[in-house]
Amino acid sequence: MQTQVEDSAKPIVDPHDIDAKLVQKLANDALVWCSLRGLLVGDRNSERSGTVPGVDMVHAPVALIPMSFPESHWKQACEVAPIFNELVDRVSQDGEFLQQSLSRTRKVDPFTSRLLEIHSKMLEINTIEEIRLGLHRSDYMLDEQTKLLLQIELNTISSSFPGLSCLVSELHRSLLQQYREDIASDPNRIPANNAVNQFAEALAKAWNEYGDPRAVIMFVVQAEERNMYDQHWLSASLRERHQVTTIRKTLAEIDALGELQQDGTLVVDGQAVAVIYFRAGYAPSDYHSESEWKARLLMEQSRAVKCPSISYHLAGSKKIQQELAKPNVLERFLENKDDIAKLRKCFAGLWSLDESDIVKDAIDRPELYVMKPQREGGGNNIYGEDVRDALLKLQKEGTGSDAAYILMQRIFPKISHSILMREGISHKEQTISELGIYGTYLRNKTEVLINQQAGYLMRTKVSSSNEGGVAAGFAVLDSIYLV
Amino acid sequence: MQTQVEDSAKPIVDPHDIDAKLVQKLANDALVWCSLRGLLVGDRNSERSGTVPGVDMVHAPVALIPMSFPESHWKQACEVAPIFNELVDRVSQDGEFLQQSLSRTRKVDPFTSRLLEIHSKMLEINTIEEIRLGLHRSDYMLDEQTKLLLQIELNTISSSFPGLSCLVSELHRSLLQQYREDIASDPNRIPANNAVNQFAEALAKAWNEYGDPRAVIMFVVQAEERNMYDQHWLSASLRERHQVTTIRKTLAEIDALGELQQDGTLVVDGQAVAVIYFRAGYAPSDYHSESEWKARLLMEQSRAVKCPSISYHLAGSKKIQQELAKPNVLERFLENKDDIAKLRKCFAGLWSLDESDIVKDAIDRPELYVMKPQREGGGNNIYGEDVRDALLKLQKEGTGSDAAYILMQRIFPKISHSILMREGISHKEQTISELGIYGTYLRNKTEVLINQQAGYLMRTKVSSSNEGGVAAGFAVLDSIYLV
Repeated sequence: MQTQVEDSAKPIVDPHDIDAKLVQKLANDALVWCSLRGLLVGDRNSERSGTVPGVDMVHAPVALIPMSFPESHWKQACEVAPIFNELVDRVSQDGEFLQQSLSRTRKVDPFTSRLLEIHSKMLEINTIEEIRLGLHRSDYMLDEQTKLLLQIELNTISSSFPGLSCLVSELHRSLLQQYREDIASDPNRIPANNAVNQFAEALAKAWNEYGDPRAVIMFVVQAEERNMYDQHWLSASLRERHQVTTIRKTLAEIDALGELQQDGTLVVDGQAVAVIYFRAGYAPSDYHSESEWKARLLMEQSRAVKCPSISYHLAGSKKIQQELAKPNVLERFLENKDDIAKLRKCFAGLWSLDESDIVKDAIDRPELYVMKPQREGGGNNIYGEDVRDALLKLQKEGTGSDAAYILMQRIFPKISHSILMREGISHKEQTISELGIYGTYLRNKTEVLINQQAGYLMRTKVSSSNEGGVAAGFAVLDSIYLV
Repeated sequence: MQTQVEDSAKPIVDPHDIDAKLVQKLANDALVWCSLRGLLVGDRNSERSGTVPGVDMVHAPVALIPMSFPESHWKQACEVAPIFNELVDRVSQDGEFLQQSLSRTRKVDPFTSRLLEIHSKMLEINTIEEIRLGLHRSDYMLDEQTKLLLQIELNTISSSFPGLSCLVSELHRSLLQQYREDIASDPNRIPANNAVNQFAEALAKAWNEYGDPRAVIMFVVQAEERNMYDQHWLSASLRERHQVTTIRKTLAEIDALGELQQDGTLVVDGQAVAVIYFRAGYAPSDYHSESEWKARLLMEQSRAVKCPSISYHLAGSKKIQQELAKPNVLERFLENKDDIAKLRKCFAGLWSLDESDIVKDAIDRPELYVMKPQREGGGNNIYGEDVRDALLKLQKEGTGSDAAYILMQRIFPKISHSILMREGISHKEQTISELGIYGTYLRNKTEVLINQQAGYLMRTKVSSSNEGGVAAGFAVLDSIYLV
């Protein structure tokens, strides 16, 4: 039962069909739009741009024209979002499954090991988290060969770009509207994207469930953050639509300024915290010293709503993704057979390195696999010949450090032509794209208050680049045009 | 009949009463607000920022807290705006008055001379301009000694900041709202500021009167413009609210790409132009060669609506301001005695340099005068001891070049305390402020379609700086808080 990519699916316009003068006009208008509407990032060429707002700003890297995407696959991706939300919540409640599945990984990956240590402590303390908030993003690529929508990963912590992605959809709709005589298209075929307000709504509702009108929402941030405007849009929505105050603190600041009151209330810098929203803490590099780990544990032990809690965080790890792809594992967490079938349909091939047949095949045909470490944040995957070398090296060492990796079927998405805007300059490029679907989930005790798809993020990157991170400089923000 | 400044008038909060931590929070929130809402300028430290949108942007320099301003003077300034609009239109129709008043200036100021040359040609050709569009800004200071609102100058060309000034009012209202528990104030005491949409409405109505739905509005711009976002906001309003397309051209480009059709239609780069909006061409430095003067003449001869026409431009010159301040001159243009009295009440002392008693007094007491050249754009006025030196030098030369200047009563505004934000840093400063009131005027034949006050611009500068230009780097954008 594969959903076929319609053969009629064509990009809304081939960049080669746009004459240079029109590209220049479009590019200029796009740059102006980004500037006036806050589609911005800190300039990487500046030292201050990651710490001081309002200085050394540059438009976010964006595609000039939205990327065509089959409507059937769009619907499929939207449909599974609430099921993945549900799955994460169920998996997170199964402490034994998390600990067992990650037991080999913990031995070789110090980062996972520290997370599991906190998780164990929480199991010991055995306080029930009544309010559970998930702001996830499930990332997909469309495999050109099988015409299947395949999941790359499920982010349960620090899902980025809810703020800027909405703006890109608006930018593209505005350009198509303005140039409707030059580019035959229908701006309404760009799906509405309200990620920032849906994220804000979920955070505000969690804040409301917590029930202290004087308490704030705390954003846990990196000390240097060039993507700060994406986060500021979320704060702006919380303030303007929900009258909720946000504060921004680094893990080190939380360690220095945070304390738990007797009833478990987290107070940071004199302010009670209702909801902790992590935009840092997902990568080993965020933990410079014991101080940051102390802060993480402090927060986890508090009665503040954690987005995510340590168990939600672990449920999104690559090893768990791989475990869930094994036969009969989804059935442990979900009852509905249809739901299970829908999720399984998006699973790419995923294997641990103790599956010797697969490892052998990957050494023979490394181009068909990606080797993924547990670490998050992009930029760490292994591709091509390097897969063979890495596997052979691990076999020789034989220390069990193969547990730090999983193998994944390599997906070959369609190659398109795009015009990418970066630092004020347009480039025509051969590109591939990755679609992220945001999901919001909120539960208080047994009552599910929110469980929905919540906007999307399209990222388009030069096809010769293996890695997908926008912040890492290889990709641009995009939107989709349904065909 | 002087309107007294209420003695109860106090700044909404003395910056010395705000503790450092609150200043830091306010400053940070102000910087974020500017970034997300497009209150931006090109960074002066960058070469590209004046030519490429979307790169090297920095928040516009702004005051952190709005400046207190007496409500009675605010009302007075608003009330005279339509009368000044009317006056400019009447003066502009009196070609003889303009030519005669500027006859001595023309001999010594080459710039005025070139403008008058074009004006003479237009008088010869004697085509009647049916559609007349004025987008003016009348600038005032409150004289501390006399408690009078006195006009500094009336700008009839390139009145800047209609776009950004609205945003500053919004920024301040947002901050007062957000920090209402820390700063006792009423955000609604910041008057509504809709300058950008009122300017756009006037431009769009003029475009509509012109009557060619395929024609565009052309912004005449400088090749390098770090204040481009102010202008882009106006274009955005025209496009989004009125579906009118704007193009941007330098004078040199207009000379190269522009032509007049037989019926007087101006076509630039293949596009018919309905309205010409000047954001360049007001200063000698905008005319690098004969090419720019040819462009100016070409536009003036066209049937496009000029904002401003050459006669509106001349009507705003300092020499004309000084002539209008002479006894019985206003009566030549206006009938209503009340209106005349209202205008006269805002006139500071203004004299030509052939009034020997005044020149003698200015040499004796130079601190009470400002010497102003005909040139526009800020940065050219003479103050203090330099007034004496300049006057003595002119007397010695005796070449008639004194006609290039006028003398104006020096106004001593109240000194306040402000927190100014520049390049991401806040500074507490002693400051003085200047209030600009925008006016929009549109007439087609005998029908006046628009004549109104249209928002405002408050500029606050360090009191030790004599010059007032925001773009020149001495001042910041501000808004007013009525007391």
